[in-house]
Amino acid sequence: MKKSVPIEPKSLEPVAGGGLLDRRLFLKQSLAMGTGAGLVLSGYDATGADLPPWMRTPGTPFSNYGQPSSYETEAIRWVSANAGAPGNGISWTPLHKLEGTITPNGLHFERHHNGVPKIDPAQHRLTLHGLVKNPLSFSVEDLLRYPLISRTCFVECGGNSNAGWHEEPIQTPVGYFHGLVSCSEWTGVPLGTILEEAGIQPEGKWLIAEGADAAAMNISIPIEKAMDDTILALYQNGERLRPENGYPMRLILPGWEAVLNVKWLRQLEIAKEPVMARNETSKYTELQSSGKARQFTFVMEAKSLITAPSPGYRMKGAGLYQISGLAWSGRGKIKRVEVSADGGKTWAEAALQEPILSKSFTRFRLPWRWDGQALILKSRATDETGYQQPERSVLVNERGRNGYFHYNAIVSWAVAQDGSISHVYA
Amino acid sequence: MKKSVPIEPKSLEPVAGGGLLDRRLFLKQSLAMGTGAGLVLSGYDATGADLPPWMRTPGTPFSNYGQPSSYETEAIRWVSANAGAPGNGISWTPLHKLEGTITPNGLHFERHHNGVPKIDPAQHRLTLHGLVKNPLSFSVEDLLRYPLISRTCFVECGGNSNAGWHEEPIQTPVGYFHGLVSCSEWTGVPLGTILEEAGIQPEGKWLIAEGADAAAMNISIPIEKAMDDTILALYQNGERLRPENGYPMRLILPGWEAVLNVKWLRQLEIAKEPVMARNETSKYTELQSSGKARQFTFVMEAKSLITAPSPGYRMKGAGLYQISGLAWSGRGKIKRVEVSADGGKTWAEAALQEPILSKSFTRFRLPWRWDGQALILKSRATDETGYQQPERSVLVNERGRNGYFHYNAIVSWAVAQDGSISHVYA
Repeated sequence: MKKSVPIEPKSLEPVAGGGLLDRRLFLKQSLAMGTGAGLVLSGYDATGADLPPWMRTPGTPFSNYGQPSSYETEAIRWVSANAGAPGNGISWTPLHKLEGTITPNGLHFERHHNGVPKIDPAQHRLTLHGLVKNPLSFSVEDLLRYPLISRTCFVECGGNSNAGWHEEPIQTPVGYFHGLVSCSEWTGVPLGTILEEAGIQPEGKWLIAEGADAAAMNISIPIEKAMDDTILALYQNGERLRPENGYPMRLILPGWEAVLNVKWLRQLEIAKEPVMARNETSKYTELQSSGKARQFTFVMEAKSLITAPSPGYRMKGAGLYQISGLAWSGRGKIKRVEVSADGGKTWAEAALQEPILSKSFTRFRLPWRWDGQALILKSRATDETGYQQPERSVLVNERGRNGYFHYNAIVSWAVAQDGSISHVYA
Repeated sequence: MKKSVPIEPKSLEPVAGGGLLDRRLFLKQSLAMGTGAGLVLSGYDATGADLPPWMRTPGTPFSNYGQPSSYETEAIRWVSANAGAPGNGISWTPLHKLEGTITPNGLHFERHHNGVPKIDPAQHRLTLHGLVKNPLSFSVEDLLRYPLISRTCFVECGGNSNAGWHEEPIQTPVGYFHGLVSCSEWTGVPLGTILEEAGIQPEGKWLIAEGADAAAMNISIPIEKAMDDTILALYQNGERLRPENGYPMRLILPGWEAVLNVKWLRQLEIAKEPVMARNETSKYTELQSSGKARQFTFVMEAKSLITAPSPGYRMKGAGLYQISGLAWSGRGKIKRVEVSADGGKTWAEAALQEPILSKSFTRFRLPWRWDGQALILKSRATDETGYQQPERSVLVNERGRNGYFHYNAIVSWAVAQDGSISHVYA
């Protein structure tokens, strides 16, 4: 058995303003948190006399497919849909109720234009045509004979976090503002394998992908990305795709905006030019101050968020807490996440959950001793390319006030003396 | 765009008997599988005239919590429970229907003695007492203020795969024979943190853990493991634990048999001696040829299984296939998985899915050109300690024929000329 080591007073000395502590502090199991570190634990009751009701009667029997506890009523996707067309809208991942890095399949965010099709996998076919030597057609069974690969990565809507452009900071739980992003282990066929089999003609520069939903959503993908790390996904977190995530097959383009990750994939056409679909002209483009619009801005830049504490939480008095959050970058691995508890004046480096995967959620955590005073929390991510998440003022200066897509500025939470948390621009 | 590189004939030359190919073959996206490699794809139909019915009407609207496709009727836990006491039994993870390394929460295997308690987290308390300086009591809310860590690891029942001891090889899908094992990303408090806070007295050598189910299951854990990598888990694959996996809190002892990973954790007592509970005396011990029994055999040794193809699958004629399976070891990382397609005469090294994590599922894959003849497939895992999964005859020689727990021998599938697969001892 390991010896208990007394706390050195210096262990609890802040490394930055607002009470941020050394990220390695929680790695020492010797930290006696109840004795001076600030956690107030309730009294011990060893009588055990009153067995809880669930120990007095047999529990429920086994199930073929399990469900969350009925007490977890807040860990749900928040739906925002068109009243007249209930299949058109979004639902948000409750990032504020989750921990670790995997998003459970039932809580992966949704964006549909005309509802979730109920596709019979035995009837579904994927065709690959256009500027190819051998047009091809695949059933699900055909594809399951191809070599499969697995990769954990995030999928993020280009419009995620767009309330950040609003004049006033939106006040919602963080998942219902930033939760059009989720992270899964995807398994499928490398798209390059079937493109090579079809044989792309030299003038084929774009891949036009179309889904089998009742909106027949389509989009243009540069052939280089299709050949690089794009996956024709069949499985998500171990099991077959969920209907709302593209069952029986979808595209996964690691690090690129979600609109390109076509669900219910039905057709792939190799073409000379992009198709100029609605979602690459009137939408998913960004009007800039100059009056010109950015188009084909595919990569989701580095972003980070503190998920705990966050709006909706109430701090329980001064003392020791752990700050926990998520960071990700469409350009590769997260290299560093820094946290500030004094509105950005000083920063402390957070611990990153291992393994750190490219284009994937990275959980960061940092110990913090709150002194009970009002202050402002921020996090900022830096990815392996050296790109650092910008302050909001920098992003607005650069892109103007008409932005809608690709908002990735530093997020700020104001902690009030009463322990409540609100979203601020600071 | 990458250039298409013609297949070198040597690429398809076997590296071992039975048609096993080089594990790096599928990493080259230049492999034109349709042109000579054996995949027969059906004809191309570019007319698109007949839109499928799901493109003609709006789909279903958004949901707060998603569910699998209604077509995935076979991707379910198989329940085997006591008819007179339906809360006593097991349910199996359908490993044969899954891919990648994560087990979705709804399909994590179950072993209960008196059903799944419905625990109100606001009423639940964990007490820590016995040979400690400061007895402690925690609510769920208290624990959520502690530092959290995340770790992906498998949980495996000590009785998993025990049909391997049978005289005749059992004929079931692989998950309903070996599926008392699942793998998740667990998040919780390092148990060492709260043990340090309580202060273990020098004579405290065992931790007695008890659950809040109606069977009040208890078990003894050596204090060294409790202080090492044991987690007091609150989250599984991102969301709070499912009821059948211990909601609101359970123990996770990476690499050790599941019976120690107490669900619905209610009491932790530090003691001098083990409690000699039913599950460490009459069960989870192994009677050996000598008449003596092995006790406290905690670690789950290295194991591997081919999940595709496997019993219940039907090969679709000679040609190119991918062999896919899972390997894991309670002693650390999987170092190597080898596959044989000639009953163990020759072996080829499989590709391992990255990242390879300690005490976690590792997916292995290997390309294979089946010539249509009968043969026997095997896989064998070697972990980072150098331990290699034994042949069945070796295990039986060593442990006798009265075994029930800790069966980890090499598994063999016979592929018949008609493409059917059966379980054999070979």
